[in-house]
Amino acid sequence: MLGEIIAIGDEITSGRILDTNSQWLSLRLEDLGIRVLFHTVVGDELQAMVAVFRQAIERSDVVVTTGGLGPTADDLTREALANATGRQLVEYPEALEHIRQFFQSRQRPMPERNRVQAAFPAGSEMIHNPRGTAPGIFIAVPRDGRSPCYFFCLPGVPSEMREMWPQVEERLRRLGAGREYILHRDIKCFGAGESQVEAMLPDLIRRGRDPLVGINASQNTIILRISTRGANREECEAKVEPVVRTIYSILGDLVFGENEIELQDVVVGQLREKRLSLALIETTTAGLVSQWLKAAENKQSGTYRGALIVEDLATAERLLTGVGSRPISSDNGESESAPGGLPVSLARRLSQLFRADIGAVAGPLQFLNDEGTLVEFSLVFCQGERVLEKTIRFSSHPDFRQITVAKHILNTLRLWLKNGT
Amino acid sequence: MLGEIIAIGDEITSGRILDTNSQWLSLRLEDLGIRVLFHTVVGDELQAMVAVFRQAIERSDVVVTTGGLGPTADDLTREALANATGRQLVEYPEALEHIRQFFQSRQRPMPERNRVQAAFPAGSEMIHNPRGTAPGIFIAVPRDGRSPCYFFCLPGVPSEMREMWPQVEERLRRLGAGREYILHRDIKCFGAGESQVEAMLPDLIRRGRDPLVGINASQNTIILRISTRGANREECEAKVEPVVRTIYSILGDLVFGENEIELQDVVVGQLREKRLSLALIETTTAGLVSQWLKAAENKQSGTYRGALIVEDLATAERLLTGVGSRPISSDNGESESAPGGLPVSLARRLSQLFRADIGAVAGPLQFLNDEGTLVEFSLVFCQGERVLEKTIRFSSHPDFRQITVAKHILNTLRLWLKNGT
Repeated sequence: MLGEIIAIGDEITSGRILDTNSQWLSLRLEDLGIRVLFHTVVGDELQAMVAVFRQAIERSDVVVTTGGLGPTADDLTREALANATGRQLVEYPEALEHIRQFFQSRQRPMPERNRVQAAFPAGSEMIHNPRGTAPGIFIAVPRDGRSPCYFFCLPGVPSEMREMWPQVEERLRRLGAGREYILHRDIKCFGAGESQVEAMLPDLIRRGRDPLVGINASQNTIILRISTRGANREECEAKVEPVVRTIYSILGDLVFGENEIELQDVVVGQLREKRLSLALIETTTAGLVSQWLKAAENKQSGTYRGALIVEDLATAERLLTGVGSRPISSDNGESESAPGGLPVSLARRLSQLFRADIGAVAGPLQFLNDEGTLVEFSLVFCQGERVLEKTIRFSSHPDFRQITVAKHILNTLRLWLKNGT
Repeated sequence: MLGEIIAIGDEITSGRILDTNSQWLSLRLEDLGIRVLFHTVVGDELQAMVAVFRQAIERSDVVVTTGGLGPTADDLTREALANATGRQLVEYPEALEHIRQFFQSRQRPMPERNRVQAAFPAGSEMIHNPRGTAPGIFIAVPRDGRSPCYFFCLPGVPSEMREMWPQVEERLRRLGAGREYILHRDIKCFGAGESQVEAMLPDLIRRGRDPLVGINASQNTIILRISTRGANREECEAKVEPVVRTIYSILGDLVFGENEIELQDVVVGQLREKRLSLALIETTTAGLVSQWLKAAENKQSGTYRGALIVEDLATAERLLTGVGSRPISSDNGESESAPGGLPVSLARRLSQLFRADIGAVAGPLQFLNDEGTLVEFSLVFCQGERVLEKTIRFSSHPDFRQITVAKHILNTLRLWLKNGT
């Protein structure tokens, strides 16, 4: 089955908002083994919508639209679908009841104009919307000498659309989707450029291969996507597994995880496993690493203890002076002018202050080039007597510089926790 | 002139990457007065691309494509365009020279397969690509009894595409675009829901009005977009100005800025204007506000002094105990058990510690509802003797809760700095 996504609205065609629904829906259709060949975005104009709907019915077997189901005059999906399929719009009592109850539950009168949301092309079915007034529409559109085109209309509000998806999926499975299995596995790497990684894997990244391996970079994380299709998950896994093993053995420590895993998830996992806690001084990343670690902990606190966000290390030193912790020298015989100097002493004091096992200092940064292509920064991690000091230089697009520094911090910590170097 | 954007690649139709190019290009075309009615995304399949290109030539006056200009077998834009326009592919010596020089400047031999990037449909013009091997293509496609369709092909790599845009814009202006002016002005509000704001402005949000006013919510920021078109900027401004005045007078303090301005930009501006500096204790926002403020400062330091990121206020209290600042009681005769209690005393100590004029404490949060719809948190701002204590309850989608709390922190600070309450 071929799939097509249609997003509706001037706010998308004019560039005012970014269409994220089409990506989300594509991933869902692919999970059901439905290949998506087209996305279309069309403005709020009836004739344009009718033409786009007719074309989709002709060229695709499953069509999912989002948007245009609201109560106002520029919400034309219902009318366009009726027009494209040659049906009349009919008021569905169950839909009207849903809209009435929606307003009643909010103790507000139902505006008369919302009544239009209960009008459906004759012969279609309503898709329940638990979060909003706009019900969705399902219609099987007959086609000469072919199976029907299955046409689904969902609201444009992402949270409503996503919550309604299981009803679409269930119908598609009943109609025969999901019989072929598509497996994607994303191997995620950090620490080398896209072309470097590609050069390490010359034979894998080739069209026509099965499994297919694609390479893609997203904010300096390199993603190798392995894709295949087969009768079921087991068959796909068996095809993919040798490729995965090859990638791991060639790329080694460059690989940090798979699929949804980010560097911060790996680091939080390592800290938990080793029963370690971490506190951090951030300068230019200004709280970004802190926020990522906190989100990765997902409210289960304890591993990430907190951070000091400062302008520069001199400020950090001033802040930590006089804090009620023993001086470093009495702890381990080292004075503050010992090798490592200020960053090491700050990391030690920080960990005392936050009662953390590991104290980390990231910064300061040097931007060696006005165009922002070359960045240098230093990192110190202290865990008792164990110390890692590292200076990192890298190239990055200025828009991603802060993100890239944050990823380098986490990746360095990951490798230290894993290999001790 | 009607515009259409076509993005090319399986990586988009399959949902692997998000299409951000189409939004960016739409905004650029709108700036030239070209209304975009369609976006199309098509996978790497020749016949599908040819059909999409032919349709675009038929229905749109300006077409911009991105992607499919690489050297590999799945890069089909050149071939599809030749096919859709009935031209032969011809090798352009200037393009070949560009590709050769690109490799030469990197001291790498040019792979033979890159030669295909020098092949253009006969009669087209090359668009220079300063950042990559793939030149762009421009062709004016004749149409019976109508002006030609102006067809531009750009690479899919966003940075290359954006850098090449001025060449497209210049050609479009020469071809008559930009004679009509389109003006958009976004009025941004925080502190009320979309439907509340809409209900306050009943007559403005109506189709067919000129200027048109649209309403849109993005992570709890409400955006009113005022749009009009006219012969030039002045004419558009004159039409838009009365609508802007009406909105400001009705919405009052709900409005915080326009266009690209975010809450953190407003707060940084207020702090600068009043020559005040700020330090912050964040709990659940875990560095998000800090990161936003730092980014808004744009490296001009001084106004935002830093933050303490902690699990809870008890941790903050423990950390700040013993810091080399005078006890609060000796400063102003207040003891720590005075009205305000711990948060006020923490905010005061924080500002001493960071040498900031304003100390702020945000948190702790209470999630009153498992579904995450109702959130309660408290805020304290201290500036010398001036203190604001506030508890805020709000509803928010769980995905945006942290962002919404961060925005409430900034909005409360904005109103305090503006009105003193």
